[in-house]
Amino acid sequence: MDPGFDIVKAGHIEFLVKDLDAAKRFYVDALGFVVTESDSRHVYLRGLEDRSHHCLTLTEAEKPGVGHFAFRVASEEGLKAIEKLARSRGLGSKWVEAEGERGQGRALRLRDQFGFPVEFYSKMLGEEWMLQKFERYRGAKVMRLDHFNIMVPDAASAYAWYVDSLGFGCTEVTETEGSKPELWAAWLRRKHTCHDIAITTGKGPRVHHAGFTVSDRSSIMDAADLLASMGYLKSMERGPGRHGVSNAFFLYLRDPDGNRIELYTGDYISADPDWVPIRWKLNDPQRQTFWGAPTPESWFNEAMHVKSESGGFEEIHAPVIKDRPDYLLSAR
Amino acid sequence: MDPGFDIVKAGHIEFLVKDLDAAKRFYVDALGFVVTESDSRHVYLRGLEDRSHHCLTLTEAEKPGVGHFAFRVASEEGLKAIEKLARSRGLGSKWVEAEGERGQGRALRLRDQFGFPVEFYSKMLGEEWMLQKFERYRGAKVMRLDHFNIMVPDAASAYAWYVDSLGFGCTEVTETEGSKPELWAAWLRRKHTCHDIAITTGKGPRVHHAGFTVSDRSSIMDAADLLASMGYLKSMERGPGRHGVSNAFFLYLRDPDGNRIELYTGDYISADPDWVPIRWKLNDPQRQTFWGAPTPESWFNEAMHVKSESGGFEEIHAPVIKDRPDYLLSAR
Amino acid sequence: MDPGFDIVKAGHIEFLVKDLDAAKRFYVDALGFVVTESDSRHVYLRGLEDRSHHCLTLTEAEKPGVGHFAFRVASEEGLKAIEKLARSRGLGSKWVEAEGERGQGRALRLRDQFGFPVEFYSKMLGEEWMLQKFERYRGAKVMRLDHFNIMVPDAASAYAWYVDSLGFGCTEVTETEGSKPELWAAWLRRKHTCHDIAITTGKGPRVHHAGFTVSDRSSIMDAADLLASMGYLKSMERGPGRHGVSNAFFLYLRDPDGNRIELYTGDYISADPDWVPIRWKLNDPQRQTFWGAPTPESWFNEAMHVKSESGGFEEIHAPVIKDRPDYLLSAR
Amino acid sequence: MDPGFDIVKAGHIEFLVKDLDAAKRFYVDALGFVVTESDSRHVYLRGLEDRSHHCLTLTEAEKPGVGHFAFRVASEEGLKAIEKLARSRGLGSKWVEAEGERGQGRALRLRDQFGFPVEFYSKMLGEEWMLQKFERYRGAKVMRLDHFNIMVPDAASAYAWYVDSLGFGCTEVTETEGSKPELWAAWLRRKHTCHDIAITTGKGPRVHHAGFTVSDRSSIMDAADLLASMGYLKSMERGPGRHGVSNAFFLYLRDPDGNRIELYTGDYISADPDWVPIRWKLNDPQRQTFWGAPTPESWFNEAMHVKSESGGFEEIHAPVIKDRPDYLLSAR
Repeated sequence: MDPGFDIVKAGHIEFLVKDLDAAKRFYVDALGFVVTESDSRHVYLRGLEDRSHHCLTLTEAEKPGVGHFAFRVASEEGLKAIEKLARSRGLGSKWVEAEGERGQGRALRLRDQFGFPVEFYSKMLGEEWMLQKFERYRGAKVMRLDHFNIMVPDAASAYAWYVDSLGFGCTEVTETEGSKPELWAAWLRRKHTCHDIAITTGKGPRVHHAGFTVSDRSSIMDAADLLASMGYLKSMERGPGRHGVSNAFFLYLRDPDGNRIELYTGDYISADPDWVPIRWKLNDPQRQTFWGAPTPESWFNEAMHVKSESGGFEEIHAPVIKDRPDYLLSAR
Repeated sequence: MDPGFDIVKAGHIEFLVKDLDAAKRFYVDALGFVVTESDSRHVYLRGLEDRSHHCLTLTEAEKPGVGHFAFRVASEEGLKAIEKLARSRGLGSKWVEAEGERGQGRALRLRDQFGFPVEFYSKMLGEEWMLQKFERYRGAKVMRLDHFNIMVPDAASAYAWYVDSLGFGCTEVTETEGSKPELWAAWLRRKHTCHDIAITTGKGPRVHHAGFTVSDRSSIMDAADLLASMGYLKSMERGPGRHGVSNAFFLYLRDPDGNRIELYTGDYISADPDWVPIRWKLNDPQRQTFWGAPTPESWFNEAMHVKSESGGFEEIHAPVIKDRPDYLLSAR
Repeated sequence: MDPGFDIVKAGHIEFLVKDLDAAKRFYVDALGFVVTESDSRHVYLRGLEDRSHHCLTLTEAEKPGVGHFAFRVASEEGLKAIEKLARSRGLGSKWVEAEGERGQGRALRLRDQFGFPVEFYSKMLGEEWMLQKFERYRGAKVMRLDHFNIMVPDAASAYAWYVDSLGFGCTEVTETEGSKPELWAAWLRRKHTCHDIAITTGKGPRVHHAGFTVSDRSSIMDAADLLASMGYLKSMERGPGRHGVSNAFFLYLRDPDGNRIELYTGDYISADPDWVPIRWKLNDPQRQTFWGAPTPESWFNEAMHVKSESGGFEEIHAPVIKDRPDYLLSAR
Repeated sequence: MDPGFDIVKAGHIEFLVKDLDAAKRFYVDALGFVVTESDSRHVYLRGLEDRSHHCLTLTEAEKPGVGHFAFRVASEEGLKAIEKLARSRGLGSKWVEAEGERGQGRALRLRDQFGFPVEFYSKMLGEEWMLQKFERYRGAKVMRLDHFNIMVPDAASAYAWYVDSLGFGCTEVTETEGSKPELWAAWLRRKHTCHDIAITTGKGPRVHHAGFTVSDRSSIMDAADLLASMGYLKSMERGPGRHGVSNAFFLYLRDPDGNRIELYTGDYISADPDWVPIRWKLNDPQRQTFWGAPTPESWFNEAMHVKSESGGFEEIHAPVIKDRPDYLLSAR
């Protein structure tokens, strides 16, 4: 299963926002991201634990959504091997030259078979570590990017691509009920945490959320207080709570444009190569929230569209199996 | 406004439970109450911070509900003064002799004008302090009783009784909207915290919940994990979250019989005699949960009935003004 | 033991500092006090939970120390009763007119029999409550003043004055070893917490520290990180740790002038009038730090001198019994 | 620098203890390790997050110390490659057959050039995951093994072995002062955390401590309270506090036999292959404890001896450069 290249981790994501100043207030003042640099149309942000240029780019746009998301690869040779793989699959790819994206070396952009704009890069400018600059800590004190969560019509196909072709390990899965269970979602890792990317059944291609790590549960509680105090009542969509899958503690937020992020803390280390995936049933009431609280319907309906080559957004396709637990289907 | 006696604090409450063993598992194994003593029909519980015999009595009964709740009074003279006050108002009262309730001195029981069985006592047996016996800490690590929350048809009348006649201070209030706001709820104190009793508009007499203090937010998160792990998914009715009123962090639980308690932490000290009540509007979305999460309808519909003299339960009366925020009225 | 007046709580303290700007950086930027107002020689500070004008005054002076400390009293009548008491004991007293201290009504200042400048006041200007203005939270997020800790040559005499004459309750005591134990220290309360003032045997009159409340242990850990990050390494004199006495979690700090404060959280509610004092032995290794860590010698040697009538500092007298545990005496 | 095999992580360590029951009380009742199995001379322990047989073995012995420590390797082929490497260096090695150590597949044991008994293994029995069995959580709630810390006379040589030959990455280093700084200590990783092994200058071969992960700072505070309450005052050698190196929050403990462990939480993810080591100076007061508290001398003097082939302990050699900061040297 060695693909001939090393994907290191979920690297960064580009969010499209209609109002850069409003987005900056949310991400910097309330969530505590560090501004590495900005221009009239972009703000490049990193977490307090990050030592490289950015993990989140805010790009001014007419409509919200996701511009692209990116994985870091161990070497330039890895990028070339991925290009080769992409060609062999007939996927569109192009090179983004160094500094084509600020702070970044030469990068490969794919349009994958599910419609996602996915970037692979191996070099990024180093930046000052703020981890022990506690006087710079603000708001939710975001540490770093942890993972992407994407919605695809056919989770099994996406699983095959990420695991068999790109070399991800599988940490946890969700399956449908019945005698012939089908894969409904999968949590896949390259770095030694629960996941770098989660694949979920749903209308797609859409990005459900990007997960960012905070230090502990107290940081999430403090963030909720601060967001409420700053008037972001409607930003808090779900949580705080404990996940069944991943065991992490979470709070889901919508930014002023509706883009969704997760504040996330407390999963586990998954370094063992013989890790046997944890298995969950779609209808298990403790799967999404370990404490049993039902997930709101908006969580299944709404997600971020992804930018297409033409400048619009990728067309959405219906899922091939049911896209939510039965308690929500029966409530209709 | 000196009533001639000193009520010290909310002292204890008696919950009626159908299955003592099931209740004991919930309160002792999951929530960490300390058993002071028990007999075939009762379990007397105290918190880790308590130095007296009990703050919660579980009494086996055919139906759940509240047997009585009790305030501690500074002296025997205070009890007599309350008896005199009760007579002057035409309220039924009787003396419960020492050890009529285990561990307690002579006590006065009133049937107040709202139908509640309220006890006043001045002496209780001392017990070992577990506060620094950390090896005895279990589950939610309940520290002590903090307050009662009662539902009454006419909050203004109950306010007058507690404040003008019994000498409580008012810490916070909720009022209806409009040019002629009416009192909808009040948080009243004797000890120097946010409250010993809260009065809420609703069908009554009913006890909405008893609030018990835990040390910090982490204890509440740990309790939610443990309750989920022990199978008490349906016990977690609301929260965890931050209150607007009281600023406390909370988790509302239903015991195996449906009796409601609150795990509560982080309100403030209210020692100042010139404290000006904090004022909230009934429809303020941050009033109940500071983070804006709507309160479930069950929270307004369900509460504990109180035992009547005859051994049944007190008859319920409708509220004189609306009993819930407009978002719930309009949802009907 | 009713003294004919009601002392409410420890109200405020005045610290003398040589450099107002440096002190402000420490108390406001690092510890999170709120500036109510300031002039060229004073900064008036309150905590996030405070609803009145100040609990800490910084006054520019040539030498550090304590200008005065003050208790809030329930009424103007109470002030007059204390004046009468002071006269009957031959203590010097004078009235400070309203606004003689900014934000404060008429106040009585005593020079007590131990040499301390103690103020009693009943009225103070109300101020905006910051408790739910989470966007204003900074640094250690100090909530309010909790207590004073004073060093006196004869703890038994000071105990008698505070308990028998001023009406304080006694929550905990420390005694010397042996068959005839002597009172070494006492924790005395008016509000329903562990204490408003602690009396310790030592050279005096000196103020050992003022204790300020924070919300929880995480706030103390965060404060230590921030102080270290801001360069205040030498400010952290002792802790963080858990006290035996009071059970509180603590961190002792020295301000830029060497004045000592305690960040303090997690003691208990002491409303019961029949509270039996908790008793500790001076040599118990868990008395000061429950985890057994020895207290540094500086803790016994250094404390704040108090301003005298003449503008200098009160003369210091030697303790009448040993002023520290044997492990420190034998180390000499 | 690809060594031809993949070391996965620090895998387990064997502590020699004189009294198995006393050790079990400490590790299981106080620290919350899970007993996987035991026999008359061994107890095999795992953390709440572990999915394999053991990360800590307690072996009854006449003297305390370390029997061996072990790294997990990705495959059986890796073990053979390490054997080949060992032979090429003239190191003694032997195969421990499957189940020669309970729950473990075939393993290679080296006596490395520094005298340490180091094991490499690729298979271990799977065990039930306790991560979401919150009702099984006890005491300090240890999650998993994180790292070993060893003392060697010549840190530069050990660095070369681990980095150049075994393929570890270097996360942080400590160097001596002066114009020709020498390597004094290094933190080396295979899994994506701060380290799997730290190499420190000192008399050696000795194991300074084994670090075990807990969930958050609250767990460490709770552990200190519990240990104190259970009588383990002298077990708490250093902390709690924040490290400069690693940024982790720590508490160092001595077990009943004096073996040293660290409770550890809150370092960072180090997945990037181009990670530039963080550099510290030996005399930096924030290096060991970010808050500036000096490290006790015992921390430099005492460490665990390691078992020799003959059944005794390896002979100790003096360090080639100074083995502690100047503030301790000058205090002599």
